[in-house]
Amino acid sequence: MSFLGESYLLSSKTGIRLFDSVRELPVVDAHNHANVAEIAANENYSDPWRLFAATDHYVWEVLRKRSVPEKFITGDATPEEKWMRMAEVFPQLAGNPVYEWMHLDLRRYLGIDALIGPDTGEEIWEEASRALAEDSSRPLAFLKKIGVEVMCSTDDPKDLLEEHDVVNSAAGKTLVRPTWRPDKAMNINAASWRDYLSELGARFNSSLDSLTELLDVLRFSHDYFDQRGCRASDHGLLKPYSGTASFEDADRVFKMVFDGAFPTAADAEVFKSFILGEMAEMDAEKGWVFQLHMGAVRDVRGILFESLGPDVGGDVSDHNIDILTPLVPFLNRFDDRLKVVLYCLEPGHQATLATIARAFGAKVNLGSAWWLCDNPIGMRRQLEYIGGVDLFANFAGMVSDSRKLFSYGSRFEMFRRVLSDVVGAMVERGQVPFEVAETLVERMCYSGPKEFFRL
Amino acid sequence: MSFLGESYLLSSKTGIRLFDSVRELPVVDAHNHANVAEIAANENYSDPWRLFAATDHYVWEVLRKRSVPEKFITGDATPEEKWMRMAEVFPQLAGNPVYEWMHLDLRRYLGIDALIGPDTGEEIWEEASRALAEDSSRPLAFLKKIGVEVMCSTDDPKDLLEEHDVVNSAAGKTLVRPTWRPDKAMNINAASWRDYLSELGARFNSSLDSLTELLDVLRFSHDYFDQRGCRASDHGLLKPYSGTASFEDADRVFKMVFDGAFPTAADAEVFKSFILGEMAEMDAEKGWVFQLHMGAVRDVRGILFESLGPDVGGDVSDHNIDILTPLVPFLNRFDDRLKVVLYCLEPGHQATLATIARAFGAKVNLGSAWWLCDNPIGMRRQLEYIGGVDLFANFAGMVSDSRKLFSYGSRFEMFRRVLSDVVGAMVERGQVPFEVAETLVERMCYSGPKEFFRL
Amino acid sequence: MSFLGESYLLSSKTGIRLFDSVRELPVVDAHNHANVAEIAANENYSDPWRLFAATDHYVWEVLRKRSVPEKFITGDATPEEKWMRMAEVFPQLAGNPVYEWMHLDLRRYLGIDALIGPDTGEEIWEEASRALAEDSSRPLAFLKKIGVEVMCSTDDPKDLLEEHDVVNSAAGKTLVRPTWRPDKAMNINAASWRDYLSELGARFNSSLDSLTELLDVLRFSHDYFDQRGCRASDHGLLKPYSGTASFEDADRVFKMVFDGAFPTAADAEVFKSFILGEMAEMDAEKGWVFQLHMGAVRDVRGILFESLGPDVGGDVSDHNIDILTPLVPFLNRFDDRLKVVLYCLEPGHQATLATIARAFGAKVNLGSAWWLCDNPIGMRRQLEYIGGVDLFANFAGMVSDSRKLFSYGSRFEMFRRVLSDVVGAMVERGQVPFEVAETLVERMCYSGPKEFFRL
Repeated sequence: MSFLGESYLLSSKTGIRLFDSVRELPVVDAHNHANVAEIAANENYSDPWRLFAATDHYVWEVLRKRSVPEKFITGDATPEEKWMRMAEVFPQLAGNPVYEWMHLDLRRYLGIDALIGPDTGEEIWEEASRALAEDSSRPLAFLKKIGVEVMCSTDDPKDLLEEHDVVNSAAGKTLVRPTWRPDKAMNINAASWRDYLSELGARFNSSLDSLTELLDVLRFSHDYFDQRGCRASDHGLLKPYSGTASFEDADRVFKMVFDGAFPTAADAEVFKSFILGEMAEMDAEKGWVFQLHMGAVRDVRGILFESLGPDVGGDVSDHNIDILTPLVPFLNRFDDRLKVVLYCLEPGHQATLATIARAFGAKVNLGSAWWLCDNPIGMRRQLEYIGGVDLFANFAGMVSDSRKLFSYGSRFEMFRRVLSDVVGAMVERGQVPFEVAETLVERMCYSGPKEFFRL
Repeated sequence: MSFLGESYLLSSKTGIRLFDSVRELPVVDAHNHANVAEIAANENYSDPWRLFAATDHYVWEVLRKRSVPEKFITGDATPEEKWMRMAEVFPQLAGNPVYEWMHLDLRRYLGIDALIGPDTGEEIWEEASRALAEDSSRPLAFLKKIGVEVMCSTDDPKDLLEEHDVVNSAAGKTLVRPTWRPDKAMNINAASWRDYLSELGARFNSSLDSLTELLDVLRFSHDYFDQRGCRASDHGLLKPYSGTASFEDADRVFKMVFDGAFPTAADAEVFKSFILGEMAEMDAEKGWVFQLHMGAVRDVRGILFESLGPDVGGDVSDHNIDILTPLVPFLNRFDDRLKVVLYCLEPGHQATLATIARAFGAKVNLGSAWWLCDNPIGMRRQLEYIGGVDLFANFAGMVSDSRKLFSYGSRFEMFRRVLSDVVGAMVERGQVPFEVAETLVERMCYSGPKEFFRL
Repeated sequence: MSFLGESYLLSSKTGIRLFDSVRELPVVDAHNHANVAEIAANENYSDPWRLFAATDHYVWEVLRKRSVPEKFITGDATPEEKWMRMAEVFPQLAGNPVYEWMHLDLRRYLGIDALIGPDTGEEIWEEASRALAEDSSRPLAFLKKIGVEVMCSTDDPKDLLEEHDVVNSAAGKTLVRPTWRPDKAMNINAASWRDYLSELGARFNSSLDSLTELLDVLRFSHDYFDQRGCRASDHGLLKPYSGTASFEDADRVFKMVFDGAFPTAADAEVFKSFILGEMAEMDAEKGWVFQLHMGAVRDVRGILFESLGPDVGGDVSDHNIDILTPLVPFLNRFDDRLKVVLYCLEPGHQATLATIARAFGAKVNLGSAWWLCDNPIGMRRQLEYIGGVDLFANFAGMVSDSRKLFSYGSRFEMFRRVLSDVVGAMVERGQVPFEVAETLVERMCYSGPKEFFRL
């Protein structure tokens, strides 16, 4: 029962045995927010705050909960000042996964075993700073140490993906694959939509003044990504769309908004429904995986959004969303032609999504517990639905959804331990023979997602 | 920790003791889809696929998830070919209850202990075929071996129930009771409604061209079922109805649809609300139990429904259904006059339903975890709400919802083990004295449902 | 594993150690329904039924579930007759928290260890009657024995709070603080609203015939409560309100209803939204905590409400409520200016509420599992969301929501044991170091809520 020790998250001997069988498997991470430029530059990190917290809104949120002023989170305090304020409240974060991840990262990759707290903050800062100054403390070396075999970043259709080439060239293999995330092209009711179209048009030498041209440009981009090793698209949506709106209706909305009008919610939905369907067709043609991240209500805390912009925290889940009505026609349109991964933010939707994955057969699968569910208990609860309603063997795999480099390590370790504990308990209860369980966890940790995503 | 061994699903000594006290109790199964004709014929099964999988869409669904082609599931492959394709992917089903049920059935009733897999499929097929050819491998003998005391099939109001007589006569006791399931009479917005009315009218020598006549015919049928030992009605509804619509409004809708119009959703709801209320009145008069199976969104996978029809898989649950609004007026109308069992498909509805069962007193009780919840973890989660919010002592009992004969055995064994484990853990945590727990699990497994349903 | 023994609810050695470290901490109870007059009178209880069941609808509900006639619950049977009917069915309540609370109270405060049942009912009645006749069996002595340091009752804005003074004077310290609960002033669509306004106006010598005057009177009352040590308001609402309606719109609705019209649902919402916002402003100014009890659908069982009135049972939760839409603008209006506690009745809302608490920073915190969730498993499930999504350190504290005096003891003991078990398991799984866990549970049980509520 030592903190983060050998039996961390493992409550049975069988769980420990299962984890032993998967702990050294390479990391295959089909969805993350890798900073590919950072990896391509492959330089040492300036300081511990930079690596551990500066880009990670999971950390920011819990510091805010403990009344740390924004100045010491995203503001103009020095990295060391921020680190020290974090250290001061760190023991109060216990129970939240941030507490475990941060300590795991210090232990596993920098060899620092101290508990973060007011008394140790300074000492850890210094020790970590020294460790980060070493040659072996560069992104590519860390990724090797973590055991990352392949990872898929999240990219905009207008991206050139040049840094991906740099990374793969330096790694001597396809270490980083891009993922096509066209949310901005779809978000016709965002104030920035027209500006985005201009940028996208400029990238592909298109005037981009009609729906037909938008589709052409998206297809060009889709082809471009495919040639550079992309295997999946990703879509961040509050709720699914049916994919059943017609070209004519979407075209009408396009023209209206392109000419300066603001669309009604219904009009925006028509446009999104149509274009999501078209993009899914492209995925189906190329055998890509269509990833759906559903249910995030973003930027609800006005004060954060107004002062800092999007993706800084202040995001929530909502049980009260109709997922089924739009998702069923979408899945029926593509039945058996399209690989789909459903990522769920809200525990209240997991059962419904598990029944949908079960109903739609081999190609519609559940992704790992996402974001606010991505903690030991959230993973455990989601695995209950995957195993009991759908099939463990169809699980689309753990993804880091990483906001910083070390997440490829600590989050995968946490997942593998939770999975081993859950399946281990089933073995101990006589529900699964050990040998069958061993094959199962290997598939879920490695070969399953590798095969499904073609990585 | 041996697979399906003595301590299968039992994690404490007290759990094992409690299970020992209920394992031999007779099976009382108040709701299933028994093939009464099959039992009446009492012939040997043609082959293992026939008995284990040919009628069980739980099996079909998980085979589809592992990419087994429909030809080898519901198609024209031979039973042995189907069995072998199933064996090939069977280890990949681990974690899903189908994996446990199938192995339980082989062990408990055919004495075959091998694990189903590509290497053993042929051998198990042969061994099972031999076992099924024996005289003791007929439906009635199996039901005796399983320990079924009484079971309630699910029947249409127009059924003559003659096969029930044959079975009971052969069994020398009331082994099979019918259940009155009038969904087809209620489903006024189904394309087949008018045809169904004709059949129902023909059965009771009625022209059946008015709402009054429909009610008369339903009452005739209700009386007929009662005379043949029926103790309950059953209603499969996406959502409850309030039972508060008036005869006049329902009559208007009846006439309109009878004359060939298609009802609006609102009109259909008026009709259903009225007729459900009338049928509940009949149950109240006779002391029957009114069973409500809520929340199944059926046949959502178009490709399955179009090629194979209903009840073949492709059914899901939906968290986003308003259960409370219609259910409260319905229960208030019949307060204390009607025995009701609420069956819940969607885990997200269980808490609401448990509070409703608690609020409406002794006659409104929770039924067992249904369908997609009917696995060890789903049962466990539901028992949490029954025990913590409502009362264990009021539980309406495990039902097999059986799609094949062996379900009376394996599903009841699974339930009794889970229940013993849950209550055993409460004893170990000092929440319930052992003697009290022993009485409680006996009541939940046997005497409670027997008394409530008058079986 | 003895019933309610040393390791009651504790499944690990670490859990037992943690509970040892918090078991003797004083009780700080920020929300209950204390009968302050009873404490002020400080007389012996007339009989065991009076103390254990006569004011506790949790008990009433489970007796109704076991078919005890209303005569022996809230009717005109004698207390002893009621007690004996309760004893008769008591073993059948096992699994429900009422079974544990009642036995805990008998053991901890009256020294009676017998199990309640048909055979022991009479003997326990006599022994308890003798114990209750002793001098030490008066409210203030019991509160001392339980270890209550401070408790906050629930009071109407028109209350004079004189009994609070009597109690505190007798106790020689601030034992009981009032809580301002203005639901009746807000409920403009209640039939009794105008009568209530008259009473409220009479109390403050106001004609109370305009919205301005209502606000003035509420402010007077708010000041009055503050001077008497009030630290929080409390609001019992089916769903939250946005607090964004204008004075003008609310004024229009006030006039309309004051002149005798019945408001539409939309009009009532406008009024409530405005006035809730104004009251929250008052709380913000004084540093009070704004407590929101959401999601109770009250008095749904008509037969109970019509014969016995409100708050007698027949209340349910509803998963199908939109919490997010109104709550987000409300919280944004007061961002960082107002301390808020969110109490959740419906397990299906807990994840959404946990993400909201996380998003809105240090002052928006989750309250303890409420009412129908206030049992070992309900507390455990809620703690999962507090720990995994929000922060344990921000937990607003256990509250008894007491309907009878002993609840301050048994409910706090139950909570502290469950918490120790949950955090103890995290220590055993290597997620939290023991020393950090020890500080954490102390904060959650005592210093956290004391500081947050300024008690």
